[in-house]
Amino acid sequence: MKLLETKILSCGKVYPGDILKVDSFVNHCIDVDLMNKLGQEFYARFKDEGVNKILTIEASGIGISCLTAQYFHVPVVFAKKSKSSNISAVVYKSQAHSYTHGNDNTVIVSREYLSSDDRILIIDDFLASGSALKALVDICNEAGAKVVGVGTLIEKTYQGGGDYLRSELGLKVESLAKIKSMTDDGKIEFCD
Amino acid sequence: MKLLETKILSCGKVYPGDILKVDSFVNHCIDVDLMNKLGQEFYARFKDEGVNKILTIEASGIGISCLTAQYFHVPVVFAKKSKSSNISAVVYKSQAHSYTHGNDNTVIVSREYLSSDDRILIIDDFLASGSALKALVDICNEAGAKVVGVGTLIEKTYQGGGDYLRSELGLKVESLAKIKSMTDDGKIEFCD
Repeated sequence: MKLLETKILSCGKVYPGDILKVDSFVNHCIDVDLMNKLGQEFYARFKDEGVNKILTIEASGIGISCLTAQYFHVPVVFAKKSKSSNISAVVYKSQAHSYTHGNDNTVIVSREYLSSDDRILIIDDFLASGSALKALVDICNEAGAKVVGVGTLIEKTYQGGGDYLRSELGLKVESLAKIKSMTDDGKIEFCD
Repeated sequence: MKLLETKILSCGKVYPGDILKVDSFVNHCIDVDLMNKLGQEFYARFKDEGVNKILTIEASGIGISCLTAQYFHVPVVFAKKSKSSNISAVVYKSQAHSYTHGNDNTVIVSREYLSSDDRILIIDDFLASGSALKALVDICNEAGAKVVGVGTLIEKTYQGGGDYLRSELGLKVESLAKIKSMTDDGKIEFCD
């Protein structure tokens, strides 16, 4: 999607270690008008999938998920990264590795909010190795919920997570900007 | 606001220790259509304040803030609760006590995203003792930004945080549901 690619080129910052920082419009300061347009794009790409719930993971996925969900008129469930005292003890859980933070998180969703009746669209900001998204897919599988699609803002195609989700798991994955390569000196090349 | 009060009475759960759990529509599963209406209400109450940015705190404040911000056409900055490796070292920071989790958090915002040019609307889900909101006000003061309003979904008026923000700090605080009393057996009484 040209709109997002242009924004990444103008406002994204590349750091050594294959880090693309998009804090100025996604991860810390959220460009809500832009995210709203991206939410409409997700709606256009998944509107025929019978989505009844969007699943994401705190914290960066919540904004884009809510702005997308309003077009589907469905609720958003956000997975939490560690056990809170204010959550039901009965949870679905999985493990995710954070590429950015270099740590592992237990990802949990209360059993109250996912069931075998659900047709889930998973949304997140990044798709790289796919660890967080795989954890969300695991949680849906545990709940017996059907994952009808995965939408991400930015995919680093060369890290293989997207291939795995598409080929191995057979999922419909739509990424609004697909990065083919990125160099430490800041050059970003998108897929055609 | 009747709409939110009715939702709290039908879906909120009261737990011993003065805990009101609204996980089913605010804090874990987000009722996006409802939050959208509440966002419109915040817009109606603050539209004349010259808001150019909304400030909130991860994670529960992000959804309602984004859905509100789209009516103002302004970005959302969300404060983070602990130092991430993927954030500028140069941050504004303050301390907040979490009533729900019983711990203290360092709350940070990158200096890149707040300045003395900003007119800030602070939004969060709960206002009880006001600790998190006071931390956000501190951060705005440190940045020289003007806080033009504070909007919260649910205020427990008997915990005094709202009084402090209104009387001591002179802020315009709007809470969409104001709880006068709550008993361990689940009885909730709203202010008139």
